Amino acid sequence: MYKVKVYITLRESVLDPQGNAVKQALHSMEFNEVKDVRIGKYMELTLPSTVKDVKTSVEDMCNRLLANPVIEDYRYEIEESVGQ
Amino acid sequence: MYKVKVYITLRESVLDPQGNAVKQALHSMEFNEVKDVRIGKYMELTLPSTVKDVKTSVEDMCNRLLANPVIEDYRYEIEESVGQ
Repeated sequence: MYKVKVYITLRESVLDPQGNAVKQALHSMEFNEVKDVRIGKYMELTLPSTVKDVKTSVEDMCNRLLANPVIEDYRYEIEESVGQ
Repeated sequence: MYKVKVYITLRESVLDPQGNAVKQALHSMEFNEVKDVRIGKYMELTLPSTVKDVKTSVEDMCNRLLANPVIEDYRYEIEESVGQ
């Protein structure tokens, strides 16, 4: 089995209103020291070990569905686990 | 500056309808090999290097606002970057 961890983040130049809202909430809860919050997505995909080219497959999924390449960046880690 | 990367995931026993929807979408796009998708959140917090106990501070934020400890798990990585 492959376990693929995908991290999707907004590009640096893109504003993050959700992150700002969380930052404000933290400030109102005594965590004034927080300078910045950026929010992204984290996904774990499970693929069988029979898949030949996991890397290409994952990049294809990211580009076509999981991430919006116009405003988001993605990175991923592929872990091979025992079994299957 | 500290850059804290926070990963929030649903506990294993909790159903993930959003992940299932993404899995279905991937299946309908020729990626039939995907066995499972779990969706979580990823956050990057920036804290100044003047903060004394980053670890406690981050755990406190996670428990009180960022994650819902009843249904979610979290883990984090603290990176220290150059410059204030």
